Amino acid sequence: MISINSNYQKLKANYLFPAINERVRNFVDTQPKADIIRLGIGDVTKPLPAACRSAMKAAIDEMGTVEGFHGYGPEQGYGWLRETIAYHDFQSRGCDISSDEIFISDGSKCDCSNMLDILSKNNSIAVTDPVYPVYVDSNVMAGHTGDISSEGYYEGLTYLPITADNNFIASLPKKKIDIIYLCFPNNPTGAIATKSHLEEWVNYALKHGSLILFDAAYEAFIQNPDLPHSIFEINGAQQCAIEFRSFSKTAGFTGTRCAFSVIPKDITGINHEGNKVKIWDLWMRRQSTKFNGVSYIVQRGAEAIYSAEGQKEIKQLINFYMTNAAIIYKELEKVGFNIYGGQHAPYVWVKNPVGQTSWDFFDHLLKQANVVGTPGSGFGKAGEGYLRLSAFNSRINVETAMNRITSMY
Amino acid sequence: MISINSNYQKLKANYLFPAINERVRNFVDTQPKADIIRLGIGDVTKPLPAACRSAMKAAIDEMGTVEGFHGYGPEQGYGWLRETIAYHDFQSRGCDISSDEIFISDGSKCDCSNMLDILSKNNSIAVTDPVYPVYVDSNVMAGHTGDISSEGYYEGLTYLPITADNNFIASLPKKKIDIIYLCFPNNPTGAIATKSHLEEWVNYALKHGSLILFDAAYEAFIQNPDLPHSIFEINGAQQCAIEFRSFSKTAGFTGTRCAFSVIPKDITGINHEGNKVKIWDLWMRRQSTKFNGVSYIVQRGAEAIYSAEGQKEIKQLINFYMTNAAIIYKELEKVGFNIYGGQHAPYVWVKNPVGQTSWDFFDHLLKQANVVGTPGSGFGKAGEGYLRLSAFNSRINVETAMNRITSMY
Repeated sequence: MISINSNYQKLKANYLFPAINERVRNFVDTQPKADIIRLGIGDVTKPLPAACRSAMKAAIDEMGTVEGFHGYGPEQGYGWLRETIAYHDFQSRGCDISSDEIFISDGSKCDCSNMLDILSKNNSIAVTDPVYPVYVDSNVMAGHTGDISSEGYYEGLTYLPITADNNFIASLPKKKIDIIYLCFPNNPTGAIATKSHLEEWVNYALKHGSLILFDAAYEAFIQNPDLPHSIFEINGAQQCAIEFRSFSKTAGFTGTRCAFSVIPKDITGINHEGNKVKIWDLWMRRQSTKFNGVSYIVQRGAEAIYSAEGQKEIKQLINFYMTNAAIIYKELEKVGFNIYGGQHAPYVWVKNPVGQTSWDFFDHLLKQANVVGTPGSGFGKAGEGYLRLSAFNSRINVETAMNRITSMY
Repeated sequence: MISINSNYQKLKANYLFPAINERVRNFVDTQPKADIIRLGIGDVTKPLPAACRSAMKAAIDEMGTVEGFHGYGPEQGYGWLRETIAYHDFQSRGCDISSDEIFISDGSKCDCSNMLDILSKNNSIAVTDPVYPVYVDSNVMAGHTGDISSEGYYEGLTYLPITADNNFIASLPKKKIDIIYLCFPNNPTGAIATKSHLEEWVNYALKHGSLILFDAAYEAFIQNPDLPHSIFEINGAQQCAIEFRSFSKTAGFTGTRCAFSVIPKDITGINHEGNKVKIWDLWMRRQSTKFNGVSYIVQRGAEAIYSAEGQKEIKQLINFYMTNAAIIYKELEKVGFNIYGGQHAPYVWVKNPVGQTSWDFFDHLLKQANVVGTPGSGFGKAGEGYLRLSAFNSRINVETAMNRITSMY
């Protein structure tokens, strides 16, 4: 009989969101009339921008003609989209990133987990605690960890706690770590990094020959123009960082699917013989062999995000969600919760002052207010006691949810 | 410094199609006025069916409303598409495949290479020679092989020759093999399997506890209703086979991106402790963690392939390409080439009777007829001397290419 990748058996039984869905389903079975408001999973709710819709329809019309038909595209994405991104998101902010350092993909979840394909098992890895579960699970599946402890930590991973005590900003590891996952604006805590904090990390990485995997999926939610949107705003990052970006939250693309990675040509790793190899070359080979590029139609939709009309629309989208975040923040603060995040991120990170566990807090809000959050402990042990509330919902739902919660306290 | 996956360094320097493109580019540099006709890469050329375009536009309109907006979909694909596929492609042909055994993806190349994620390195693997390069390269990258020999064979892989001598049908391996890649209608040879041939493989797999990875990306090109379209038309295949299907060639989706895998719930492998584990569970976990599903818009386009209008259109598309294949077959036969395939596949597999190597044959046709084929040796050593010609082009281009070639001989 064939043998399977037994590393999968080290994974915890349930991925967080299926576990939440099951609890909600069980509750609805007993209370079928409950009007559930979901502030759990970070999924957008507003319609796709008109600029994107028009561009995709025009692309479909093109695909209906012999002259305008597009078959296989470049695996790394079309040049016109990569050039638009390089200019708008990087060069215009002073980052020396060229279009051939951009790789278009169908999602940051895919990119950050597929990235492990090109790395060996011999790297030491650090994640924050709490953390976006995909960073951890993809490493477990790739055999980069040992077993899970009774406390929920995988052997071989270094966990960097982020809590209210350190303002949700991890301290630099005391030992040498090869690969460091950072996410700013942070999922789940909503924390944001200053330029000087990122400089510390880049200096650490340059000193130790480390690679920073920088997840900037939420950069569009940054409100303060002085805060860095990209790790490449930091000198030296091009020698030590890969950045993941997504249109999912920026432009409501969670169901449309387009994202990209930035892999500077300067970054190298060493092979088993100790020779330097360009990470860019490896990723290009990986994508050419195992991926066929993103739908032409979707890439045209993504390009439209950068048009004048598109930019206007996504600013409105982001303002809308950030107003929701502000409402959540303000209302829950009133009733004495400890509230973090929500200023430059669509997530509010809430601590219940009465000391409930995250799942008890979750159940309490589900049963009493019919509001679904995401238990902080699902993101790691240091998230225990917290709940993540997402700003992705209608105004009326957010207001109703806050009224229900505040009236409980 | 971080260490990389050194298995990538075992790969041959160039993937086949980039190598072809480079030769064509070099030729065009010297002959800028040459009217190149590309019968090389298997990429479709006809417009996307109207049924698919209408469905995708309607989906875009939906996405423009609050009520019709779709965010994250199920990672395995929407139920309505999986049910349509299960009924139309399997149940209606007597295969007992249910909708939850279908996993929608963005490409068969992704699926067949990502499938290795859930398997261990301890399986013995067989591929045909010649073979679609992705099966081999993805195994090399995953560390499932040793180094490449001077003859182009990777240590640790079992190669099953398919040549004119065995009518391009591989003999069963004499030893036990765990994982066997089969592709029918075959890329690159255009060969087709009868039911009795597939029965031999299924019996072999059941006897040895093997897994067949069955690539049926070209099943829509089968012309004879008695030939099997799916491995699941064979009794017992549900215990030993996974099937890959794609809309790329069927409905011109190479640039639109939608495909699917069929993973029966009965298939198991063993873990490091010798316990049985369902392959379906592993793939579901892999997709949930590392993939976010296919664009809602594209899934609606794929669904429309199965509508009455869609079916009519794709029959026309396939007839058009198969008429091209028949022209290539007939014209080259006239001038004394040995011709195979092209009856149930969009590929014609041509042997030059004067005994040129594949790359010499390629260069000869490029320079003398300005026609681009794909060198058979690029698919494996047993493909030496052959050229693959694709039927995916306009009628006038196919006719012109054949006129140019036949006038050379």
